[in-house]
Amino acid sequence: MIKTDILIIGAGPTGLFTVFEAGLLKLRCHLIDALPQPGGQCSEIYPKKPIYDIPAYPEILAGDLTDKLMEQIKQFEPGFTLGERADTIEKQEDGSFIVTTNKGTKHHAPVVAIAGGLGSFEPRKPPIPNIADYEDKGVEYMIKEPELYRDKDVVIAGGGDSALDWSIFLTDVAKSVTLIHRRNEFRGALDSVDKVQELKDAGKITLITPAEVKGIVGDGKVEGVLVEQKGQEPVTLKTDHFIPLFGLAPKLGPIADWGLEIEKNAIKVNNALDYQTNIPGIYAIGDVNTYPGKLKLILCGFHEATLMCQSAYQRIHPDKKYVMKYTTVGGVTGFDGTKKEAPKAVVKAIN
Amino acid sequence: MIKTDILIIGAGPTGLFTVFEAGLLKLRCHLIDALPQPGGQCSEIYPKKPIYDIPAYPEILAGDLTDKLMEQIKQFEPGFTLGERADTIEKQEDGSFIVTTNKGTKHHAPVVAIAGGLGSFEPRKPPIPNIADYEDKGVEYMIKEPELYRDKDVVIAGGGDSALDWSIFLTDVAKSVTLIHRRNEFRGALDSVDKVQELKDAGKITLITPAEVKGIVGDGKVEGVLVEQKGQEPVTLKTDHFIPLFGLAPKLGPIADWGLEIEKNAIKVNNALDYQTNIPGIYAIGDVNTYPGKLKLILCGFHEATLMCQSAYQRIHPDKKYVMKYTTVGGVTGFDGTKKEAPKAVVKAIN
Ligand SMILES: Cc1cc2nc3c(=O)[nH]c(=O)nc-3n(C[C@H](O)[C@H](O)[C@H](O)COP(=O)(O)OP(=O)(O)OC[C@H]3O[C@@H](n4cnc5c(N)ncnc54)[C@H](O)[C@@H]3O)c2cc1C
Ligand SMILES: Cc1cc2nc3c(=O)[nH]c(=O)nc-3n(C[C@H](O)[C@H](O)[C@H](O)COP(=O)(O)OP(=O)(O)OC[C@H]3O[C@@H](n4cnc5c(N)ncnc54)[C@H](O)[C@@H]3O)c2cc1C
Repeated sequence: MIKTDILIIGAGPTGLFTVFEAGLLKLRCHLIDALPQPGGQCSEIYPKKPIYDIPAYPEILAGDLTDKLMEQIKQFEPGFTLGERADTIEKQEDGSFIVTTNKGTKHHAPVVAIAGGLGSFEPRKPPIPNIADYEDKGVEYMIKEPELYRDKDVVIAGGGDSALDWSIFLTDVAKSVTLIHRRNEFRGALDSVDKVQELKDAGKITLITPAEVKGIVGDGKVEGVLVEQKGQEPVTLKTDHFIPLFGLAPKLGPIADWGLEIEKNAIKVNNALDYQTNIPGIYAIGDVNTYPGKLKLILCGFHEATLMCQSAYQRIHPDKKYVMKYTTVGGVTGFDGTKKEAPKAVVKAIN
Repeated sequence: MIKTDILIIGAGPTGLFTVFEAGLLKLRCHLIDALPQPGGQCSEIYPKKPIYDIPAYPEILAGDLTDKLMEQIKQFEPGFTLGERADTIEKQEDGSFIVTTNKGTKHHAPVVAIAGGLGSFEPRKPPIPNIADYEDKGVEYMIKEPELYRDKDVVIAGGGDSALDWSIFLTDVAKSVTLIHRRNEFRGALDSVDKVQELKDAGKITLITPAEVKGIVGDGKVEGVLVEQKGQEPVTLKTDHFIPLFGLAPKLGPIADWGLEIEKNAIKVNNALDYQTNIPGIYAIGDVNTYPGKLKLILCGFHEATLMCQSAYQRIHPDKKYVMKYTTVGGVTGFDGTKKEAPKAVVKAIN
């Protein structure tokens, strides 16, 4: 059982910044995310695109924003349960909560902050009849651990950025990389498309287009895929892994059944005070919540996280009074023992 | 008469970011500030100190934060009335407002956003009986235009960062710089104290300590100051300017009489919707407002400014419906004709 002060569901920008604000209040956080990496929409959908409305950043790539947030919260040593979806929540007698993921990992905390964005990112799966039988037995919809593919034969399907970028990346890891797409045209950053062309010309990526994977073969694990190239007979291609990268789509999913008030696929909160939901101790911040005038913007999630942490502090320490100190004045003391602090002014004679 | 869409009182971080959010909605802004420079508390009180809780900035100097915000809003061509205090407001028949400063400058806008922080920064004045007679006639409490001192004799009084830093700066501009302080010890950044020592040793700054200026002499303008060094008879020192830099303190001031609901020296707003005050069309954002759970933090001002602009848009364009577009997706089109935009994905064949 993982224990923490604030259990955060969703490691997007809102969830990440919550760790910082909680840390200032000496509260520890643990984050659960269905994705294998932190950053939410920023890292999954548009890591290489610029955002222009992060205050004081005239321009920042979404991936860099995630990196900066990770750097900012490092001192507060957040825990992560990645690649797992928070599925169920049980309220305990003492008012605390136990949250269990689809893989059975249990988390216990007095406060739960749902920062689930548009929902848990779930892969779009290709319509291959027996594909479920091979999930995690050679079929992966997202790449969690590239080392899994070391010296293996790998077939990737898809025509977007993920398919292009992982094909490029895995040429240095896998024994062979085959990229299959139902059209000749790929959609992505110009760099990536050109790089795949180059690797194909160098014989490092085998390209099969326009083509589709129609079936999987193998005894208890993937041993090959059935590939149908347009106008030709299907052939079986020997492979250890089949990785369909058709994008991930967010689904509010199980959270919708937790007894929270839902409106337009989002969780209603008390925006006049602390972004708490109808269940005391459960807060909802960032894109996942709704209230009059709500804007689904990153900078709004930052504010909501900050106010929410103050309320969480009161809930966890009902008898303490917190006096806010500016970070500039009080410095920032990490759980790892590090301290950031402003150089002190000196009082010094001039003679 | 200066005309604009949103008249912002206060050019601190909150007021500055308002220009950006308004600009995205194609609304123009003009800012009034009592200080000679933008940045509010950040530029006046702690420009060289680090802030640690600006989201995605593990550390940023308050002065750099101001610079980044100025860079971010440049595209939207904000107007500035600096060094003037907004004193009176008059509601017009059509619901718009005219705001007049202490220098008589008039501003007309359908929406007023008060981003006045802890109030208008007003100088702490030394207790010299006839000092008021010489204000702007050789006595200045803040330095608005350093060129005013070109080849002049200047006396600065004070023992903190401003007195130190302006003494250093003006050695390159003025004919002579004399620094007077009632103690031998100065309080400021180590660098600054050491630099003044160095300039004193080089004969570029004359230091008189422990001493106080007790009087001003001159016919219609400053011609000299009466300096009393401890244990000695007062002497008259010839000078063109006397600049007492004893710090600026914020005072809510005239805004307190505008008919707004005030609580604990701050303006009550509707935080459940749009940060509007009890007077429709007047909003209050950032440190200057109050509501249940309010935190006087920079990041909160950013959020409040953003929601406020949406409401202002509705007020200004009651019959238009605004559909928010992410900056990443729609780009940012400045009033100066520039456009920032994300590189487009390509669709390209690989052969
Ligand atoms: C193309 C694009 C451009 C954008 N441009 C801008 C812009 O310019 N400016 C701006 O401010 N915003 C922009 N946005 C929106 C911005 O990305 C979101 O506002 C922001 O990501 C919301 O952050 P969040 O942390 O609330 O949620 P998200 O980033 O959505 O993160 C939520 C995370 O929670 C996880 N999760 C949800 N439920 C569960 C569960 N049950 N179990 C485990 N994990 C779960 C998800 O997998 C996800 O990783 C853009 C969005 C897109 C798609
Ligand atoms: C030493 C110190 C350290 C701090 N550290 C942090 C920190 O680590 N993190 C953090 O988030 N915050 C910190 N703060 C607080 C932060 O600076 C404020 O929250 C922020 O400046 C508020 O911004 P604002 O734009 O709302 O108001 P301000 O910055 O106060 O700006 C308001 C401006 O309005 C002007 N004004 C007011 N009334 C009038 C009028 N009638 N006419 C003309 N002009 C007027 C004032 O002159 C002023 O320039 C710190 C503050 C101090 C003093």
